[in-house]
Amino acid sequence: MTPEHGKEKGVPDFLLDAEERQRLWRSLTEAIEKYATHIREMPASADPTPEAARALVERFDFQRPMAPDEVVRLAAEALSTTQVHTPHPRYFGLFNPTPTTVGIAADALVAAFNPQLAVWKHNPFGAEVERRLIREFGARFGYVPEQTDGVMASGGSEANHTALLAALTHAFPKLGSDGLRALSAQPVFYVSAESHHSFHKAARLCGLGSGAVREIQVNASLQMEPEALESAVREDRRSGSAPFLVVGTAGTTNAGAIDPLREIAAIAERENLWFHADAAWGGAAALVPEMRPLLAGIERADSITLDAHKWLSVPMGAGIVLTRHPEILRRTFHISAAYVPPRAAGVQTADAYESSMQWSRRFIGLKIFLSLAVAGWEGYAETIRRMTKVGGQLRRDLEAADWEVVNSTPLPICCFRDRTLPPDTAMEGDYLESVVREVIASGKAWISTTRLRKHIPVLRACITSYRTNGDDLRILVSVLNEARTKLRAGTGWAGRVKSATPEA
Amino acid sequence: MTPEHGKEKGVPDFLLDAEERQRLWRSLTEAIEKYATHIREMPASADPTPEAARALVERFDFQRPMAPDEVVRLAAEALSTTQVHTPHPRYFGLFNPTPTTVGIAADALVAAFNPQLAVWKHNPFGAEVERRLIREFGARFGYVPEQTDGVMASGGSEANHTALLAALTHAFPKLGSDGLRALSAQPVFYVSAESHHSFHKAARLCGLGSGAVREIQVNASLQMEPEALESAVREDRRSGSAPFLVVGTAGTTNAGAIDPLREIAAIAERENLWFHADAAWGGAAALVPEMRPLLAGIERADSITLDAHKWLSVPMGAGIVLTRHPEILRRTFHISAAYVPPRAAGVQTADAYESSMQWSRRFIGLKIFLSLAVAGWEGYAETIRRMTKVGGQLRRDLEAADWEVVNSTPLPICCFRDRTLPPDTAMEGDYLESVVREVIASGKAWISTTRLRKHIPVLRACITSYRTNGDDLRILVSVLNEARTKLRAGTGWAGRVKSATPEA
Repeated sequence: MTPEHGKEKGVPDFLLDAEERQRLWRSLTEAIEKYATHIREMPASADPTPEAARALVERFDFQRPMAPDEVVRLAAEALSTTQVHTPHPRYFGLFNPTPTTVGIAADALVAAFNPQLAVWKHNPFGAEVERRLIREFGARFGYVPEQTDGVMASGGSEANHTALLAALTHAFPKLGSDGLRALSAQPVFYVSAESHHSFHKAARLCGLGSGAVREIQVNASLQMEPEALESAVREDRRSGSAPFLVVGTAGTTNAGAIDPLREIAAIAERENLWFHADAAWGGAAALVPEMRPLLAGIERADSITLDAHKWLSVPMGAGIVLTRHPEILRRTFHISAAYVPPRAAGVQTADAYESSMQWSRRFIGLKIFLSLAVAGWEGYAETIRRMTKVGGQLRRDLEAADWEVVNSTPLPICCFRDRTLPPDTAMEGDYLESVVREVIASGKAWISTTRLRKHIPVLRACITSYRTNGDDLRILVSVLNEARTKLRAGTGWAGRVKSATPEA
Repeated sequence: MTPEHGKEKGVPDFLLDAEERQRLWRSLTEAIEKYATHIREMPASADPTPEAARALVERFDFQRPMAPDEVVRLAAEALSTTQVHTPHPRYFGLFNPTPTTVGIAADALVAAFNPQLAVWKHNPFGAEVERRLIREFGARFGYVPEQTDGVMASGGSEANHTALLAALTHAFPKLGSDGLRALSAQPVFYVSAESHHSFHKAARLCGLGSGAVREIQVNASLQMEPEALESAVREDRRSGSAPFLVVGTAGTTNAGAIDPLREIAAIAERENLWFHADAAWGGAAALVPEMRPLLAGIERADSITLDAHKWLSVPMGAGIVLTRHPEILRRTFHISAAYVPPRAAGVQTADAYESSMQWSRRFIGLKIFLSLAVAGWEGYAETIRRMTKVGGQLRRDLEAADWEVVNSTPLPICCFRDRTLPPDTAMEGDYLESVVREVIASGKAWISTTRLRKHIPVLRACITSYRTNGDDLRILVSVLNEARTKLRAGTGWAGRVKSATPEA
């Protein structure tokens, strides 16, 4: 007979002994505490060379066992000194948040209990937690809770991909068995020209090809133009394609634009298209009563993407896709297998694997659930409200300092350019890139550039941390001003900008 | 100007104050410690009613804020009293492991630092850690490290799905833009009749339809029959379909069968098919020198799935897909977007989003990396070797107690029936289900049933915890024997089994 594990020669004890475990938890919580309490004074990002990053990786040796508390300490140090610090109060970047502390604890708990969320019977608590979240979030968007279905996903890409597949299955019920080649026409779908690229990726991966994506032009506020949508649908029908889906974005990645959801809903209903609302970030507005009207029409969407790891501030990844068609996910994803147990009696919750691209899956919902329990709906509303106000303040602060905010959105994203730069300056894109490099190199803040309408270069700053406050805004504006002064005064940009100025 | 967050009325401090944080970490580590140290004495699973599970969920209130340490305590209690305990030493179930303790710490660290793994520049350490893992795992399978590419995934389903998409793109380079309908023939692919159902799901989701999956028959050891594969390919070509992929499984879910990888590789090379090896569980054998020959031929696979959250014992989910075609993932998944920064100079690692179905992604690799650093390659080899021995012992113990092990595999999965039951007993499936119910109800162990060749009912017990020892095997066999005695002695099965016995 085999002895208790770990007492055998050469076999490492993956569980560790009591003392090692205590040292490990101490090392872990010290690392997390150090990061959380000192991050405000740390540079917002680091910019190591590939060689430096690799040297940190090579400190770990797979030939000689290392102490658990030591490897955690080294990993924390490596992350601290190399990464773009998404949890930094002056990370004004993409939608990555400062995670809630209880969300971090939830991820650790999930790892320790290692639940298997494929089937209800294996984790009834996990399944029911996610079911409650799906219904309660559905209610915030105006869905009828009893008719709301949904599933947690690795992130927004998987959530949007899931919705695309559901829409295809809804329009072409035999797709799962017969495939796309058995259809009589090529399915096509519509997104705005400012939508997230995950739809282009999903179009490729589901076999439609990127040629099936129709980008609809946007108005001055970067919102989809309903008339353009209508005529594109008409044109596609005329040419023999099969329109099946339109995506409205509630909070674009570039500029926080919210498409006209009511108008899109009306067109979708008239044209018999599935209406998916990509509210990955902006969906958080549904939690704030006075912001909810910004999303008017979303209750008519057939499906909605909401990423809790964006504005709801839980650690990555926590995508959610909701639908008001309670059977569609099962029709899209159900597969039977001999080793899957039959559904338990009295269980109303579908087994998760039936509704998901995944099979065995992490318990994604717990970090959302515990964060909600700690803050309450009202606490979340107040946080989102406050971050929106901070965004408004940033807009005013930038304008006051002669940075021109070029996007109009009630959500806290500012896309801006240097108002002191003459309009139509050649190489404005390079200039703004230089501004970003200066800002990032200062360590005081992290912002990025993007291109609106795919060609208009802008600086982009988003309020993405619940810790960002007025002092942080002042620091950002001041470092932007310093970058401008330095670049315009230097030998480089002053001349080039001047020579590029159009003759008066 | 806005005051520091958390000091404003009504705004919850998601970060928590110092004392709350200390209480939270204490509550978390106490819950994890309690679970890890008491699990051996706990029932291996619970079987709550849906009402009981929902009642535990309803203890959490979203209207009134709750204390962070309290919600963690309640969640741990709910998981402890409801789930199938995958980390239990007598969980003989699907491939869910007892997680390594440092893997749990790694998941917490990742949640706290919340790195964004879409692009190298945002997390150079994370990107380089995963690059090293991919190359080192590739080397274990016989790949040339410099030519090995790969990506981390949410799990085996995503890894297999990724490989299927890569194989399609390899065979049909214009698929991404033009879609499946532009091809001149229907692509079809081959799996064994005992392969994982994720290929059927992926076939549906990529637009091929489940009709494109050809299940190849298996031999007496449940391994794919190469001759049957060859004639299926021939037949498909004759009828105008386009074969592009064959999947060989290294350790089937049902019975741990390893397909004849060398023969499959030869056919794939001859027939110009992509060869994918699904080694999600069995790939662990590549870490043990004397077990490596079991996988002979896998080095010729074009891509390989390995799930670290199976036999490598890290918390879910940690899928890995490897390929020896360094450009294929980028060709399959690359999409450009305005808000994506250009690749940093000198960086040899592709940005993760270019190689993945996902975009923003958790730092999946850290829990694998730190577990390897703590155990070393040699420690892992010793653990896998030891678990394999425990599986051999279980086989002998079952046989000695008149349970007939019907599968032959060097890997630690036993599929077995009751030898004291006459052959061809009607309702053997129901009988074995009853045995499982008795075993699970005892709380002493967790096993399951499955069906080999889709119709032969068997009991299934897999060594999936590194803590499982000889005592655990004795307890399992004894509870199985008790179940048999009870069922055969009772009014129910004795009569039915007798009456079903064929006349001598």
